[in-house]
Amino acid sequence: MGALHEGHLQLVRCARKKADVVAVSIFVNPTQFGPNEDFDRYPRVLDADLELLDREGVSIVFAPSVAEMYPDGFQTMVEPGAMAQVLDGAARPGHFRGVATVCAKLFSILNPDFAVMGQKDYQQFLIVRQMAEDLNLPVQILAHPIVREPDGLAMSSRNRYLNARERAQAVVLRRSLDAAGRAIASGEADPDAISAEARKVFNNCPDFLHEYFVAVDPDTLAKPREDWNRIVCLVAGRMGSTRLIDNALFSRSGEEETL
Amino acid sequence: MGALHEGHLQLVRCARKKADVVAVSIFVNPTQFGPNEDFDRYPRVLDADLELLDREGVSIVFAPSVAEMYPDGFQTMVEPGAMAQVLDGAARPGHFRGVATVCAKLFSILNPDFAVMGQKDYQQFLIVRQMAEDLNLPVQILAHPIVREPDGLAMSSRNRYLNARERAQAVVLRRSLDAAGRAIASGEADPDAISAEARKVFNNCPDFLHEYFVAVDPDTLAKPREDWNRIVCLVAGRMGSTRLIDNALFSRSGEEETL
Repeated sequence: MGALHEGHLQLVRCARKKADVVAVSIFVNPTQFGPNEDFDRYPRVLDADLELLDREGVSIVFAPSVAEMYPDGFQTMVEPGAMAQVLDGAARPGHFRGVATVCAKLFSILNPDFAVMGQKDYQQFLIVRQMAEDLNLPVQILAHPIVREPDGLAMSSRNRYLNARERAQAVVLRRSLDAAGRAIASGEADPDAISAEARKVFNNCPDFLHEYFVAVDPDTLAKPREDWNRIVCLVAGRMGSTRLIDNALFSRSGEEETL
Repeated sequence: MGALHEGHLQLVRCARKKADVVAVSIFVNPTQFGPNEDFDRYPRVLDADLELLDREGVSIVFAPSVAEMYPDGFQTMVEPGAMAQVLDGAARPGHFRGVATVCAKLFSILNPDFAVMGQKDYQQFLIVRQMAEDLNLPVQILAHPIVREPDGLAMSSRNRYLNARERAQAVVLRRSLDAAGRAIASGEADPDAISAEARKVFNNCPDFLHEYFVAVDPDTLAKPREDWNRIVCLVAGRMGSTRLIDNALFSRSGEEETL
């Protein structure tokens, strides 16, 4: 969606290692925004984005208009399944339908061998990977680890909405994930207990209105088996009017892992 | 879906004229059948189908199992829009979602330049064409005219469900389309009046339980503009327990046209 930051640029570098030709799509996709969300105010800085991508050696930037992507009469949507009904899917009805639809379209148009997506949007990554598999799309979906600011805040185009006070407190998401990791390292394996431990961190940060903190199966987002080997912790909430998300994947010994 | 008849074979011949390599999919697709429909009893005669296709010079027959097409965990569906809500879409909830989904999958797997579909499933043709356009699939959807039995009955794999008495009466669908054509030729341009004229034919055939007869815009299935140039008449109903459909495209002068 543009408004590129270092997290996006690392996706580009990862793609360049995998392929000779790298294409980047920049499209603030209206179908993935709800009626009361930030579609209108979402940052659009195409010239700055193009300059950054030029420096990274990107071959193709695909930056279509809304009318090109959704002409009059457009009516077919790609509807993801159960994985899109929970967490961000419950908080943002229709969001993942819009994401799956635009990704299916972009994959058809660009026909990539690989697509590199950020782990920061963990649920999105799972849904798009499932969509590609379910619709037999000839693309391999790769996840790139979350890129963070020095204090631990996951990079996001929406971070620029935060005022100084909010920005200072935004590290609370990462701190809650750290607390979950410590609980796991100390032997806690019960997802509810892990989450309860992590949520205690929010008590010290009344400006953060937490929406969910869960510890779930990394492949299905369902309740983990009792003998789980890996677990993903996902957190979301509002800092002021800005919705923030973050996540971390842990081994049974509490070590953070990559996808 | 197999159980091939002369209508299917003409699709193959049409495809051979367009392309060097012709692939045929044979798959009785469970997602396009409702819970009380004929999925279980739908005719499956793969060996006979393969022999027919061999004679036609088909290069590839893709006949997957249900488990190959819909493995455990499958959850992404392609949801067509307004055009799928009316007529057969209203009579068969979810039917066109299943059709659009399996066609999207088949197109991804086989990657055809052209796909030839029968005009008999007129609404299906429009929905799949719209799906391919909406999802930017690199396939051109072509329609082949309806192939009919000598008495006018549109060929269909479901015709074999008809007993002798039902088979004799099944020509009533074609007769209703003829009546519509005559009404148009005599100057009638009002869709409701055309349909009313056509429906009179059903009075002579009490065994045919008609579901709908409409005269609509050939591209959108909506009410035609008053100054329409072409109109499509679509009819559906039950002969005993067998659901039959048929259609015809007419010019303003009442001549039957092809898509």
